[in-house]
Amino acid sequence: MPCEIDFEPIGLRVGCAAGDDVLDVARKAGLQMAAVCGGRGTCGQCKIMVRSGEVSPPNETEQRALTAAEGREGYRLACQTNVLGSIRVHIPARSLTATQRLQVESLEVQVEVDSAITTYEVHLPAPDQDDMRADAERLTDALRQDHGLHPVSFDLAALRRLPNQLRQARWSGLAVVRERELIQFEALKQSALGLAVDLGTTKLAAYLVDLGTGRVLASRGLMNPQISFGEDVMARIAHAMEGVDKETELRQVVVSALNGMAIEMCVEVRTTPEAIADAVVVGNTAMHHLLLGLPVRQLGLAPYLPAVREALDVKARDLGLTLAPGAYVHLLPIIAGFVGADHVAMLLATGLFREEGIVAGLDIGTNTEVALRAHGRIWCCSTASGPAFEGAHIKDGMRAADGAVERVLLDNGQVEYQTIGNVPAIGLCGSGILDAVAQLLKAGIVDRRGFMHPRHPRVREAEGGREFVIVEGAESGNGRDIVITRGDIGEIQLAKGAMRAGLQILLREAGVDESELDRVIIAGAFGSYIDVASAVGIGMFPRLPLERFVQVGNAAGMGARMALVSRAERRRAAEIAAQAEYVELTGLSGFTDEFAMAMYLA
Amino acid sequence: MPCEIDFEPIGLRVGCAAGDDVLDVARKAGLQMAAVCGGRGTCGQCKIMVRSGEVSPPNETEQRALTAAEGREGYRLACQTNVLGSIRVHIPARSLTATQRLQVESLEVQVEVDSAITTYEVHLPAPDQDDMRADAERLTDALRQDHGLHPVSFDLAALRRLPNQLRQARWSGLAVVRERELIQFEALKQSALGLAVDLGTTKLAAYLVDLGTGRVLASRGLMNPQISFGEDVMARIAHAMEGVDKETELRQVVVSALNGMAIEMCVEVRTTPEAIADAVVVGNTAMHHLLLGLPVRQLGLAPYLPAVREALDVKARDLGLTLAPGAYVHLLPIIAGFVGADHVAMLLATGLFREEGIVAGLDIGTNTEVALRAHGRIWCCSTASGPAFEGAHIKDGMRAADGAVERVLLDNGQVEYQTIGNVPAIGLCGSGILDAVAQLLKAGIVDRRGFMHPRHPRVREAEGGREFVIVEGAESGNGRDIVITRGDIGEIQLAKGAMRAGLQILLREAGVDESELDRVIIAGAFGSYIDVASAVGIGMFPRLPLERFVQVGNAAGMGARMALVSRAERRRAAEIAAQAEYVELTGLSGFTDEFAMAMYLA
Repeated sequence: MPCEIDFEPIGLRVGCAAGDDVLDVARKAGLQMAAVCGGRGTCGQCKIMVRSGEVSPPNETEQRALTAAEGREGYRLACQTNVLGSIRVHIPARSLTATQRLQVESLEVQVEVDSAITTYEVHLPAPDQDDMRADAERLTDALRQDHGLHPVSFDLAALRRLPNQLRQARWSGLAVVRERELIQFEALKQSALGLAVDLGTTKLAAYLVDLGTGRVLASRGLMNPQISFGEDVMARIAHAMEGVDKETELRQVVVSALNGMAIEMCVEVRTTPEAIADAVVVGNTAMHHLLLGLPVRQLGLAPYLPAVREALDVKARDLGLTLAPGAYVHLLPIIAGFVGADHVAMLLATGLFREEGIVAGLDIGTNTEVALRAHGRIWCCSTASGPAFEGAHIKDGMRAADGAVERVLLDNGQVEYQTIGNVPAIGLCGSGILDAVAQLLKAGIVDRRGFMHPRHPRVREAEGGREFVIVEGAESGNGRDIVITRGDIGEIQLAKGAMRAGLQILLREAGVDESELDRVIIAGAFGSYIDVASAVGIGMFPRLPLERFVQVGNAAGMGARMALVSRAERRRAAEIAAQAEYVELTGLSGFTDEFAMAMYLA
Repeated sequence: MPCEIDFEPIGLRVGCAAGDDVLDVARKAGLQMAAVCGGRGTCGQCKIMVRSGEVSPPNETEQRALTAAEGREGYRLACQTNVLGSIRVHIPARSLTATQRLQVESLEVQVEVDSAITTYEVHLPAPDQDDMRADAERLTDALRQDHGLHPVSFDLAALRRLPNQLRQARWSGLAVVRERELIQFEALKQSALGLAVDLGTTKLAAYLVDLGTGRVLASRGLMNPQISFGEDVMARIAHAMEGVDKETELRQVVVSALNGMAIEMCVEVRTTPEAIADAVVVGNTAMHHLLLGLPVRQLGLAPYLPAVREALDVKARDLGLTLAPGAYVHLLPIIAGFVGADHVAMLLATGLFREEGIVAGLDIGTNTEVALRAHGRIWCCSTASGPAFEGAHIKDGMRAADGAVERVLLDNGQVEYQTIGNVPAIGLCGSGILDAVAQLLKAGIVDRRGFMHPRHPRVREAEGGREFVIVEGAESGNGRDIVITRGDIGEIQLAKGAMRAGLQILLREAGVDESELDRVIIAGAFGSYIDVASAVGIGMFPRLPLERFVQVGNAAGMGARMALVSRAERRRAAEIAAQAEYVELTGLSGFTDEFAMAMYLA
């Protein structure tokens, strides 16, 4: 019997036959679902919810793989669910692999559109001997008379183009106005566009948004080209401190990259960056300062002060960005030297700031910012988690790209794994490393201190100490064994120890116990790849029921898009930054003890 | 008996002996007074007023040379006045030669100082582990707490320097604020400076002003370097219309010249252009547009519309001017395509706009703007008077510089003359040409049509027609005869005809007769050199009692200085521009007739 599956929220409708399992249909349709066990029902990753239509009832395999809470909430495993008629299925983001998840991220922002930009259609009388008003005056008169807008000032760059534009457009067109300032005149009656940017230490994410509807029209991700000048924030600061030319170089490579992304996205939707009337940029404090050309020396020396914390509106041209002639860039506020505008954007996007209960938020990256909401207050801190979760400092580590092992399962001693893109493995990305450590710990091959025991045939002695072979050279993409070493485990201990200690300090400040946490929000690209059970397994997160964890993907980018289309969200961001209580961990009594404790696995 | 003379308003005190004549004392002290007759009492130019002290009584020579009104007002001739004790003497500007007069122009502006810039002394607590406010926040908190100033925004360029400046200055210094925007932080407690610029087609005049006191600290005059791209406004517009690169070139040469003048003046007062916190620029519409980078194409084609008329505030950096990091440039408003911000500045400086009586104002240049105040209204127009008064298109013409004949007198057939700098003559500047035509007309050598009769031994036939020798080669500075030709007289007829016709049209618009004019204000550099009697003699101005004429020098520069130090004057300038009724002469019925009539001499 021919049936159909509607996959939500992706919006894909696929034909299938009665009796097909949902995982199989999804994969054939090109949806990359997580399922490291290959569909045997043991990994529990391909969770779905059936919204409507008839399917096979839950079986015993599912009951073992799903928690009681998940069962109550109606979760099923796609691999164990057979289609009995046309159905509607919801796929949560965490059930998708990395590549697929990035697509889902560009879904629309759910905020009321209230952007800083308004466009006004104008039809001006042509000048003659009896009507010798200046061009600008002619336009302001029309805006006042036809739209009740008065007064209006003119951006100089917009004014420079106005006389020729008015004549070419035969005195009709669209006035693009931002807070009573004319920033662009266009002959065409098109919506104004906006650019939202998440300026990460490692990755740049950019979104082209229709400011009229809030819809994302295009998106781009790119490695931050500053990486060639230093892998992490401190290395970049050190580079900038070498001289003004170095600082300028750091700024220029990012500005070029942003201009390039804007052009690419505009080409994709058949327009030019001149149509971009507004922009919002979020980033950590160092990225924010480097983009603005603010000095970072004082950021790199105790007490690590930002030059400015409040939100800024600057002309795009003053940053070297080529957008509409008079376009501004809005930069969300900063909380501290190491808790930047990206964290504010995350707090905004996740709604953490208005939670009634006790909620933690972690934005995992080379620095992991931790926030805690409790009793109407917000505490936050920054921890130097390092780049291990991005594959750096890991022997066979790599970034999350095709061929990276992203899931690992030890099933009765058998090593199962899944790679991004389902191609032969060439290395381990962060979520794969995390899974591997968790599985080795669970199997007793690694102990709480991180020590590796020779209790499995794949454990072998190597030059740098013991290591465990995840993928043998015979089946890897490059003919070499892919291993996890004692040193790799140490890197993971440092990384997870730092962020867990940060969370424990905030819990102590707030006077609440970790068991009281109602919700733990995991943000950041890496945070959305990981298997939460693995993270809890190694003690990266508190041992709480898994349903209390929420993976939200690139929440900073989402927050940037929200602030782009809504002035109310900008005001909210300012309130969040003002309200947040920053806790400086350096030199804080008790932090070293917490850190040492948190290095233990589990 | 040793005596002293206090010369006002120059502020010079000079010793002398009883019996010395004032002209002689003044000249020995370096004051360059006008006196073409050499002190014989016949030219009537070295007028002074004795404010206090004892001098010889008026003699018959003076009674002949001065009008009855001048006698009643207490005017004396310096050459006929002998010192009888210590005295205080006032020298009106018109009694000084060109060079001297330019010095007088930089006297203080008499307006209440109320500039857009306020400086606040701040002493900030140094940051530590317990006070981790951002640099900007630390400063805004101090401005709010110590000075009640809140909120304050930050210019990006100023913010970029703030962190290093605060640390170098050990957290104390001066915050320079413009309308709640921090535009500069300085370690030194010095007054903020301002720059006033009159951007003339031919000359640039710049003034460095103390914004706290309104005092002029330095001034500079420079040829407008755009001259190499076209002598008059239309030629510059035509050049700019050849392409964006030409337009950019025109802008850049002026911007470089202005930056250069700013640096020179700052060096003179031992500071740097970074101390210049505010600027005001006035200029005709074309100069204004070229500086701003606004297109001029529509200015060069009927109906000759400006891109914008209203006053503008733009960042100095957006114009390429290097002042304080966040400094703005205020551009006074424009009245029409050929009645620019310089004319508004002149109306402001002369107070014409609030006159109760009937008053005309002429700002003489390559374009002469004419304004008429009557019955509470202001009319204005622009006339293409051409560059003849600047010595261009005149056979032996030259600009007003050392060696230019600036005064000519035919005394019983004898030719007397005076040169700028009292050096041998090398040419004729505008005022000399004007005098020459007036004297030749008075002597009957030239008739009303401009025809030259051979009634004087110095009239001779030359290749281009008849000419009159003003200075013979034997005594000139270059060995050549300096002459005035029939063609030169024609140029003067065109020039004076245009401006006189403009005045007549405005009188007609206002419905008043020229005899009702209470006052005629003559502005512009040239306007302050000329002998008004000569100008009236050839019919350039209406035949009115000489005391109704006032020569005010570079009133546009004065207006720029007033707007620089006073926000009230800026508002006034906006009101003037809004109130002025522009009369377009091109195609106006009756203008050609008036022009033809006005070409007649006398």
